[in-house]
Amino acid sequence: MDTPLHPPVSDPDLRLLDRYWRAANYLSVGQIYLLDNPLLRQPLEAGHIKSRLLGHWGTTPGLNFIYAHLNRIIRQRDTNLLYICGPGHGGPGMVANTWLEGSYSEIYPDISQDAEGMRKLFRQFSFPGGIPSHAAPETPGSIHEGGELGYSLVHAFGAAFDNPNLIVPCVIGDGEAETGPLAASWHGTKFLNPVRDGAVLPILHLNGYKIANPTILGRTDDGDLEQLFNGYGYEPLFVVGDDPQLMHRQMADVLDKAFDRIQQIQQAARRGEAQKRVPRWPMIILRSPKGWTGPKTVDGKKVEGFWRAHQVPVAECRENEAHREILQQWMAGYHPDELFDDAGRLMPELQALAPTGDKRMGSTPYANGGRLRNLLEVPDIRQYAVEVNRPGETLAQSTAVLASYLSEIFTRNPENFRLFGPDETASNRLGKVFDVTNRSWMEAILPWDEQLAQDGRVMEILSEHQCQGWLEGYLLTGRHGLFNCYEAFIHIIDSMFNQHAKWLKVSRKLPWRKPISSLNYLLSSHVWRQDHNGYSHQDPGFMDHVANKKADIARIYLPPDANTLLWVGDHCLRTWDRINVIVAGKQPEPQWLTMDEAIRHCEKGMGIWHWAGNETAEDPSDVVMACAGDVPTLETLAAVDLLRQYLPDLRVRVVNVVDLLAMQTKEQHPHGLDEQEWETIFTADKPVIFAFHGYPALIHRLTWQRNNHRNIHVHGFNEEGTTTTPFDMTVLNELDRYHLAQNAILCVPGLQEEAGGVLDALQEKLAAHHAWVREYGEDIPEVHNWKWPSHEDKGGAPD
Amino acid sequence: MDTPLHPPVSDPDLRLLDRYWRAANYLSVGQIYLLDNPLLRQPLEAGHIKSRLLGHWGTTPGLNFIYAHLNRIIRQRDTNLLYICGPGHGGPGMVANTWLEGSYSEIYPDISQDAEGMRKLFRQFSFPGGIPSHAAPETPGSIHEGGELGYSLVHAFGAAFDNPNLIVPCVIGDGEAETGPLAASWHGTKFLNPVRDGAVLPILHLNGYKIANPTILGRTDDGDLEQLFNGYGYEPLFVVGDDPQLMHRQMADVLDKAFDRIQQIQQAARRGEAQKRVPRWPMIILRSPKGWTGPKTVDGKKVEGFWRAHQVPVAECRENEAHREILQQWMAGYHPDELFDDAGRLMPELQALAPTGDKRMGSTPYANGGRLRNLLEVPDIRQYAVEVNRPGETLAQSTAVLASYLSEIFTRNPENFRLFGPDETASNRLGKVFDVTNRSWMEAILPWDEQLAQDGRVMEILSEHQCQGWLEGYLLTGRHGLFNCYEAFIHIIDSMFNQHAKWLKVSRKLPWRKPISSLNYLLSSHVWRQDHNGYSHQDPGFMDHVANKKADIARIYLPPDANTLLWVGDHCLRTWDRINVIVAGKQPEPQWLTMDEAIRHCEKGMGIWHWAGNETAEDPSDVVMACAGDVPTLETLAAVDLLRQYLPDLRVRVVNVVDLLAMQTKEQHPHGLDEQEWETIFTADKPVIFAFHGYPALIHRLTWQRNNHRNIHVHGFNEEGTTTTPFDMTVLNELDRYHLAQNAILCVPGLQEEAGGVLDALQEKLAAHHAWVREYGEDIPEVHNWKWPSHEDKGGAPD
Repeated sequence: MDTPLHPPVSDPDLRLLDRYWRAANYLSVGQIYLLDNPLLRQPLEAGHIKSRLLGHWGTTPGLNFIYAHLNRIIRQRDTNLLYICGPGHGGPGMVANTWLEGSYSEIYPDISQDAEGMRKLFRQFSFPGGIPSHAAPETPGSIHEGGELGYSLVHAFGAAFDNPNLIVPCVIGDGEAETGPLAASWHGTKFLNPVRDGAVLPILHLNGYKIANPTILGRTDDGDLEQLFNGYGYEPLFVVGDDPQLMHRQMADVLDKAFDRIQQIQQAARRGEAQKRVPRWPMIILRSPKGWTGPKTVDGKKVEGFWRAHQVPVAECRENEAHREILQQWMAGYHPDELFDDAGRLMPELQALAPTGDKRMGSTPYANGGRLRNLLEVPDIRQYAVEVNRPGETLAQSTAVLASYLSEIFTRNPENFRLFGPDETASNRLGKVFDVTNRSWMEAILPWDEQLAQDGRVMEILSEHQCQGWLEGYLLTGRHGLFNCYEAFIHIIDSMFNQHAKWLKVSRKLPWRKPISSLNYLLSSHVWRQDHNGYSHQDPGFMDHVANKKADIARIYLPPDANTLLWVGDHCLRTWDRINVIVAGKQPEPQWLTMDEAIRHCEKGMGIWHWAGNETAEDPSDVVMACAGDVPTLETLAAVDLLRQYLPDLRVRVVNVVDLLAMQTKEQHPHGLDEQEWETIFTADKPVIFAFHGYPALIHRLTWQRNNHRNIHVHGFNEEGTTTTPFDMTVLNELDRYHLAQNAILCVPGLQEEAGGVLDALQEKLAAHHAWVREYGEDIPEVHNWKWPSHEDKGGAPD
Repeated sequence: MDTPLHPPVSDPDLRLLDRYWRAANYLSVGQIYLLDNPLLRQPLEAGHIKSRLLGHWGTTPGLNFIYAHLNRIIRQRDTNLLYICGPGHGGPGMVANTWLEGSYSEIYPDISQDAEGMRKLFRQFSFPGGIPSHAAPETPGSIHEGGELGYSLVHAFGAAFDNPNLIVPCVIGDGEAETGPLAASWHGTKFLNPVRDGAVLPILHLNGYKIANPTILGRTDDGDLEQLFNGYGYEPLFVVGDDPQLMHRQMADVLDKAFDRIQQIQQAARRGEAQKRVPRWPMIILRSPKGWTGPKTVDGKKVEGFWRAHQVPVAECRENEAHREILQQWMAGYHPDELFDDAGRLMPELQALAPTGDKRMGSTPYANGGRLRNLLEVPDIRQYAVEVNRPGETLAQSTAVLASYLSEIFTRNPENFRLFGPDETASNRLGKVFDVTNRSWMEAILPWDEQLAQDGRVMEILSEHQCQGWLEGYLLTGRHGLFNCYEAFIHIIDSMFNQHAKWLKVSRKLPWRKPISSLNYLLSSHVWRQDHNGYSHQDPGFMDHVANKKADIARIYLPPDANTLLWVGDHCLRTWDRINVIVAGKQPEPQWLTMDEAIRHCEKGMGIWHWAGNETAEDPSDVVMACAGDVPTLETLAAVDLLRQYLPDLRVRVVNVVDLLAMQTKEQHPHGLDEQEWETIFTADKPVIFAFHGYPALIHRLTWQRNNHRNIHVHGFNEEGTTTTPFDMTVLNELDRYHLAQNAILCVPGLQEEAGGVLDALQEKLAAHHAWVREYGEDIPEVHNWKWPSHEDKGGAPD
């Protein structure tokens, strides 16, 4: 047995702590039920009670219990704790505790620490114009929206990375513990380095029931639980019971032990003692009744310790006098007169139990990451530029070029930036970053292993949920990062993306919440280059999902080559309070723009590539060939090349779009172009053949308000995919050069009759492609070796 | 120790089994590399080798090892096994084994069991026009697409439910084991009843590496692994090593033990012995080298037992002679002459190792569920109809009405139907089903627990991933089911939905795959009725996600009341090879249509509600008030009510849409209306005020090809949500009656000037709403108590 680092807490101190807990419980009940009469100075009347009773009592007393005990730890050890409240439905508890410690009233002075403030505190809860029923951006001390379950522990680890002076107690409900993302999150310790990172203290709160069901882990016996968490690599510590007095003693002792263990692990590691394996971090299993200290039964039915305590344990207290009496007894049982003085202030001896200043969990800057955020140090993108003497002459791998820039980001921001990915960083051609850092890995490293280190800064785990959640936690505590992922599988975190977008939408409007770095996605190994993995790996629909979000948050970029990707990547990393989605290729592809051109093009978001077209001021375009995405750009230019060979008199304009949402109107999106600007690019009346990276419908929904909309003909992914060659993927979906050129001919009024032979020639090329691919399993040389321009370039207008 | 039920396998038999394994390995390598010369009868030349080398070798020898050993078990015990191949990238192994046993050639006679067939088998793999590199619908014996990782074990449990004579060995790669959904899947045993269900035998295959990283579980020591899986409730059995001879012995003995244990558990349970807790089912942990039996090193770099063996262990065998020599040695090392006869047929003594007929894992009907599928027995929906004497008079909870119908489905289909949900069945008001069944629960049941039973047929776990995966496995093996979920959180399974839609798209075109029941979603607790849980619970975007899929697969229904929901629910449950999304409310809401009207309306998919409008043949409509979804329908009718009160001369048409995708053209969707039909409903030129359940953009993308599209003004969810009242949710998003009526006035040419006073009156009503809600926290009586019609009904045209 290790000697405790602190003497055990005294019984009188525990009795004080119990009173603090009762105060928090009292305030929690009050929020759910009361409109008025907050201190029960009069008998409860119908008019004191809310007409709609909303909120979740079941988990709340447990959350309050933990909060009160953690306050003691902070004072004892002068440590920084960030409380992650997985059972976020227990919003009343988080609000109650931050009000008790004073954090709440500092942020919301109108909710003062007195009887009137308490009245407003109660009234506003789950009330129109008030605050949500769950822990939310509005809740001081929270980085974790309590709506969708599953992400508390992964957020905790994200917060702890690179925060060596932070400990993150993370309460995980036994409901949440059934979700997949949570079940995988326990492995976070295998990536947590006690030298440079903080610690996570998981507190698995087993109250036994969900909405209307027992929980799996709640019904699992202690022996199996102990093995399970030992197996995950933890040292589980149990706190079990329902008698508050006994539970306070257990909890205090177990917390002392857990924080001692954390300190020992960190100190040993920071003294430089060799770490042979992942430290066996402590975790706590707290079994306490659902709805603890609430009504035991209502109308003869079991409530405390059962799922009936999940939300509002006694209903209709406005209408039903007997129920109102239960509520009265329940609240009075906390003895508010022993907790609050005449003015409704917490008794001074209880006030003294809370930490002060930024040590209060409701005031910690770690929960308001913008307060801690340092700007990212970025290099000049020009030094990574690909030299482009002529459009299409050079080949480069866009993501590999970006990787050089990212390496410098790592170098300049040694404690402030991480790259996340599900075992795909090398596959996405970002391997260059391993010149300056490694993959983070706390398990054993074998002699032949490569690019693994305990201090690696590339976070790879085969779980998109973990990558997303770690990054969210990292950003919400004030740092910077990038998530690289196969495009198709980013849908795995659609719902996590939703919740983060919701968080940003709300937090941006709260003046006390400072901006955090944007959540940046680099989606590579995209739909058009998953010919080898086949149909299961082909899906460009994440863009559609993102486009549904508030326009002031969402951005989607489709850089067509390496220099544009450099601009976009750099731009996104320097933004805040947004979600940026970048879709870019990893294969060798022709490069179109010099760095200067790329900068100008990206700043506008879209534009005419005059060098690729052949219109003139006197002889304007007959057709606009537009594109967004690297493969669509390549196919569009190849189609233009064909058109200019076969139909030299046809006037073609080439338009490329990088900033997809700028296709919308100014009213729809801050980047949107007004109709006049838009027509300058897309014309007011010419056919537009639009080659698009994603589902064609997305272009239609972005442009339906444009006057020329009915003239836009979109080619994109039509769910036609399989294992084949890269070019054949485009043919299957009619995004290829031949179909694009054909459609251009069909859409220019009158051209079809004149160019019937060209249509036939293009059809023959398609036939030749099919025959070749089926025979040789690779793309026909005419396509594979194609270079812009093969037509005799008669020159377009100058750029 | 239990006495083994069978004598241990003899050494000569294991030597034969080793040859069988070598044959499968040989065929796997051949698929990845060879175009020709399948039996290596000539030295390998460049021309024999594919120009693009694709496929995943690393996991394949392990998969083959397991397959060969399972063949022995089937013959020994005459049992039905369904092999779930989690590392689906190991497609070559699944193909090789089904070819060896004859299943492959029966389905694809062109790929015969001889040298020519072998040549074609090799050539087609990962080759344009051939087969995918992963286990896929094309793969005999598979119900599991091997692209996206995480769902093997949950599929296995879904397959085992209600299949008492089936055992499902499920191979889980250590990469996949890092995903969240897989980590949660281990709990499936807590819902698996050994009396009525089959068994799942998880085989955790630790080969130590992912694409470019070690795996977490691969690096976890055996002690922790043993504790982890004990903690999950299993009896872990280890098979560890790299010497094939020793490994065969271990594997055979461990499999014997595992199948003995399964038999003991099942027999004890089926004899009626009381089960106090979840049986401790066996699972196997197989540690074998990645790329086992492949090249040990290439160019001096470690390959076998390292991540370099993940895909193609020796590259450029066409161009690089030394590499080609490695390939030659590698393949020759399997001694094809000992495996295949002169004609390229598997030696007879090896053929005898495979099971025969439907016992072959490639031919089992359990992997082609349509072969086993019985039609669902359904009652007449009329007997559950809500009586509707006048539109709007009756209140009913739509999902509660459907629940009565579902109860009868349970009764009539005692082994063929299950309901799945993440602890929300009661919350979604489907509690009526508990009159006839219970929740499935194998853990302890306490005296006060309700609606829990070992033979319950409602599957509840707080994991949308598990619900989805169980249902997929259940459907793919020929049964029927329904997934009920909160609308917002169905995004959690967006990516699983994608993969299932992809499966259906491909499997529908394979004549040998028989149709399976549709995957049905009932999304309730939807965006407009999450006023109490707040913004985190508000998201209607799943419809957008679904609308991207192939039109012959996806259906979206928005029944406006209980009788339409009955028709839709019944219809969906009787379809096959589709994905049906139903969005329906659970709160008491006005009922609009009699059962007869509901049937006629739903069969058309959309239509004019003549009783609600006031146009006549002589006096056609000035404006179309359209709606889709229950709350939008309510608000539209209330808006029409206001318009008819305030502006009795305005001619209003009311249109309701149930079958959302029918809004598209006939070319876009099989349910689509042609332009003429569409204009009969929506008019050719009148303004359409469209109140929509989801994001407005979805209506635009479905209708942009309509001539009257620019005249459609959509009100829907604009990401404005919080904790408030139900009606205030609609006001925040301008979907409420007042905004709809206002917009109608603004959009009818010339009406604005005439009806300025009405606009003001509506604005005053909005102000009154705001004041009331902020004061009382509930909806203003004018709204709360509103009933159709409060205007003097001057009668519309007859329906």
